[in-house]
Amino acid sequence: MAGGWIEQFADAPDVLKTAPDQKTIVRAGGVEVGGGEFVTMAGPCSVETERQLMETAEHVAAAGARVLRGGAFKPRSSPYAFQGLGVEGLRLLAKAREATGLAVVTEVMTAADAPLVAEYADILQIGSRSMENFALLEAAALTQRPILLKRGMVATLADLLRSAQCIVSYGNPQVILCERGIRTFETATRNTFDVSALIVLKEICCLPVIADPSHAAGRRAFVPGLARTAVAAGADGLLVEVHPHPEQAWSDGEQSLTFAEFDDMMADLAPWCELRALRSRAVETVA
Amino acid sequence: MAGGWIEQFADAPDVLKTAPDQKTIVRAGGVEVGGGEFVTMAGPCSVETERQLMETAEHVAAAGARVLRGGAFKPRSSPYAFQGLGVEGLRLLAKAREATGLAVVTEVMTAADAPLVAEYADILQIGSRSMENFALLEAAALTQRPILLKRGMVATLADLLRSAQCIVSYGNPQVILCERGIRTFETATRNTFDVSALIVLKEICCLPVIADPSHAAGRRAFVPGLARTAVAAGADGLLVEVHPHPEQAWSDGEQSLTFAEFDDMMADLAPWCELRALRSRAVETVA
Amino acid sequence: MAGGWIEQFADAPDVLKTAPDQKTIVRAGGVEVGGGEFVTMAGPCSVETERQLMETAEHVAAAGARVLRGGAFKPRSSPYAFQGLGVEGLRLLAKAREATGLAVVTEVMTAADAPLVAEYADILQIGSRSMENFALLEAAALTQRPILLKRGMVATLADLLRSAQCIVSYGNPQVILCERGIRTFETATRNTFDVSALIVLKEICCLPVIADPSHAAGRRAFVPGLARTAVAAGADGLLVEVHPHPEQAWSDGEQSLTFAEFDDMMADLAPWCELRALRSRAVETVA
Amino acid sequence: MAGGWIEQFADAPDVLKTAPDQKTIVRAGGVEVGGGEFVTMAGPCSVETERQLMETAEHVAAAGARVLRGGAFKPRSSPYAFQGLGVEGLRLLAKAREATGLAVVTEVMTAADAPLVAEYADILQIGSRSMENFALLEAAALTQRPILLKRGMVATLADLLRSAQCIVSYGNPQVILCERGIRTFETATRNTFDVSALIVLKEICCLPVIADPSHAAGRRAFVPGLARTAVAAGADGLLVEVHPHPEQAWSDGEQSLTFAEFDDMMADLAPWCELRALRSRAVETVA
Repeated sequence: MAGGWIEQFADAPDVLKTAPDQKTIVRAGGVEVGGGEFVTMAGPCSVETERQLMETAEHVAAAGARVLRGGAFKPRSSPYAFQGLGVEGLRLLAKAREATGLAVVTEVMTAADAPLVAEYADILQIGSRSMENFALLEAAALTQRPILLKRGMVATLADLLRSAQCIVSYGNPQVILCERGIRTFETATRNTFDVSALIVLKEICCLPVIADPSHAAGRRAFVPGLARTAVAAGADGLLVEVHPHPEQAWSDGEQSLTFAEFDDMMADLAPWCELRALRSRAVETVA
Repeated sequence: MAGGWIEQFADAPDVLKTAPDQKTIVRAGGVEVGGGEFVTMAGPCSVETERQLMETAEHVAAAGARVLRGGAFKPRSSPYAFQGLGVEGLRLLAKAREATGLAVVTEVMTAADAPLVAEYADILQIGSRSMENFALLEAAALTQRPILLKRGMVATLADLLRSAQCIVSYGNPQVILCERGIRTFETATRNTFDVSALIVLKEICCLPVIADPSHAAGRRAFVPGLARTAVAAGADGLLVEVHPHPEQAWSDGEQSLTFAEFDDMMADLAPWCELRALRSRAVETVA
Repeated sequence: MAGGWIEQFADAPDVLKTAPDQKTIVRAGGVEVGGGEFVTMAGPCSVETERQLMETAEHVAAAGARVLRGGAFKPRSSPYAFQGLGVEGLRLLAKAREATGLAVVTEVMTAADAPLVAEYADILQIGSRSMENFALLEAAALTQRPILLKRGMVATLADLLRSAQCIVSYGNPQVILCERGIRTFETATRNTFDVSALIVLKEICCLPVIADPSHAAGRRAFVPGLARTAVAAGADGLLVEVHPHPEQAWSDGEQSLTFAEFDDMMADLAPWCELRALRSRAVETVA
Repeated sequence: MAGGWIEQFADAPDVLKTAPDQKTIVRAGGVEVGGGEFVTMAGPCSVETERQLMETAEHVAAAGARVLRGGAFKPRSSPYAFQGLGVEGLRLLAKAREATGLAVVTEVMTAADAPLVAEYADILQIGSRSMENFALLEAAALTQRPILLKRGMVATLADLLRSAQCIVSYGNPQVILCERGIRTFETATRNTFDVSALIVLKEICCLPVIADPSHAAGRRAFVPGLARTAVAAGADGLLVEVHPHPEQAWSDGEQSLTFAEFDDMMADLAPWCELRALRSRAVETVA
């Protein structure tokens, strides 16, 4: 990397690679992210009911997912809005973990909730809107749980790495980055999936990087295609929304895959993931 | 307003005007925002020392400011970063209020801090990065202090009004909106000051709207010009950074005005503010 | 201006100020742009009929406009699209000039048309879509007519000045710049009017700068407010769409003012323009 | 596709698919684009010398490219700027075609040049800056040569398809679309490569779609990675800059691949292209 360009990332010294093959492997609930395997994290946007969650967990586990996602705490934009099931949602996630062996990732919305969420979740998710909520980053870091840090809608890669650096500087190096689309003028997709972010981050940063094609696309028809490009870009995994009945989902139904669509996507991805694995091994041999 | 266009603001019914002359007047520490007077809020980015704050407060009060701004809690992006003076900063702000009669506005960063900040401040500021931190909005709203809500760097006006609606729906109608520039491709200014936002908001929303030219411009040379456009757009006031020695400021020195520059700006603004006042009265007579 | 910042404009040496009071006055058809007077250019988006144009010209002249705008050649996006009246449109513009004394500005779309348009128009307009059509810039420059150069929808100020530099380097220093809104994520207005552009350009560039609030706003209700902010920003004039019956306009009806609205705007602007004139004279005395 | 969403493309009826397997195959100089094969177009940004062009042509042909790219006419942003070799450049391109069997694509900058460029080139390229130069689109269309239409830096997909529709409506259905990155706030890459554009366009539009990773990335290190994502997205080919000595290139050296880097990229892409071919055939069998 030429001198001038890399300087935009100067605020994040502890997450920049010092050698080409340096990498952080994040370990959570028996799963390794960043270690070679392409890890799929799947589940509903929100935990709605026990039945919805258990069915989804069993289905995605059978299709090859390794981590269950699902929101227990939701952004509560009014006193009347659905705010998630809260602790009850966390308990259901833990129950689904027992039944399926999947690890659990769920969002923490406030600093005060961090210890509670850390009791139940294997990975704490920091949402896009919270990427620069530094008090939350501190509280999440201090739980010592691995952190899934989603890029803000309008955050540069330098901004994202600064937030990652913040978590690491609080003594928690187990951070996974997630590209989920940025806000642009384009209206054909909900956000613009910045696939270059995956390539740049894998080149310069030691942390694992995954992609969220669901929020990027905003429409389920485009999710499997974006997932394929994430594999080709060298991403370490996927965060994807799946729902038994997307048309009845309490949130984000338009972008959630049905079970059948998820199965098709996983089958479609398999040979691309194999190629990705071959390639990484070849690159490592060289490095 | 034609049917289709206004619908983008449908999530914020309680802050949309139902009559052209409807308006919310926000009252804080003896100052009225939105009531006709053009209110200048000025002070340093961060409270640094007693001397820095008292000098600034006395100077801006003498030059016509009505509210003192100053950060006591700062975004703490690492364990080593300056995090503001905290409670000590709040005490200094209160002391400056006593000495000058200025009202005090300061940012609250976390839900847990809201009651504490509300003990000292006349107006609680929600920063750009926190505009969609709904837990914080709730906690701030519940203190019943007036809220200064800054637009997120990449928030649409619909997003901004949704957050304002959130505060109002928690029982606190005393909300001031603040345009502070949005993120675009342009690099000549730190952000792109969206002056249309002031015009659109004054047309459709009953809340007072002020402008922060300091964060928009990012360079002090352009601050007075932007302030003039805010007056012309019909804004209810200004939030502006002033520092006794900008080149020594601990944060945002490049965009802070010196005392002399602040005096010049206030003198320059005076006739424009008079014109604005004449115009508002004329418009009200018609409406 | 600090060293680093100004360097982004290094490609445009011949249009940067070398002294604070340096300015280019553009003279066209008896009108001076950039010389102190705030110059309003008004008229329909497209020249449609003789009656439409003559009525509009007479009305805007009576209300204080100095230049008549109107498109004779339109972007022809299909073999079937309205392509403007062409030469007939140019003849009508010339006729309206004779009747009213207004100068005429109209867009030139292709290099081949430049000499023809220059026969009829006092000022050649380069549209936003053509700002980097360098062959067209060359052909327009060589006619030696003054050029109105509109900023591209996504052009930085550095890009705009590079195009201005191109025209000047072909031997034609008579260039007027025009801010007309940039493309962002915001949907409340058609484009985001970058009022800082006016302030920055007046500070660093010797060319006159005007504003097009019609294309920026996209909705007529917001045009007069934006026009006021342009005056406050120190702009040298205005380019605004006016139509006898906007609801029947062949193009851009939503953003065109009626005659009555134009009259109101001009009356509203008058005291602000006076203040602007007082201020410029004061600044000049100092400089 | 749901009713509402597809309506944003209503201005381009003749390029939208009416059946899932509908496709236009563009035939140029013995090459088929859109017919199944992944077609690589490679060469220097500008034609500089006979030696530079011939060496490059021979090298990229040997490595598997099917089309030679190279600019003969360049945007001429001043009277002194390098404007390309012009006709001499076209002759060199034709000579390289004879020597290698590669087809030739080169940019046409002005309507007046279209017939001349069409004498030499197999495919006429419309550059990003010209995407909405409708007079140029008309002139290029009328030559009846296949057209490579590059997306504007800030054009929505709806805008891009409207320009494609324009070409088709002038009687020329042989259009290839090209995604080359859009302008956003991100600074880590020159532009933001919109990989979703490839996926959306392949889903809704019958025209072939290729990717230009060189202009998107702006840095050669990221070009091969972006090329892989284009294959995974289902693109029909690639437009990529290659130069014998990028550090001496007269333009775009930072983003041009060396011969060795191009060879590595082609070898790296081969298995991904095979997978893409298998997948297309499987999809076609189903459709």
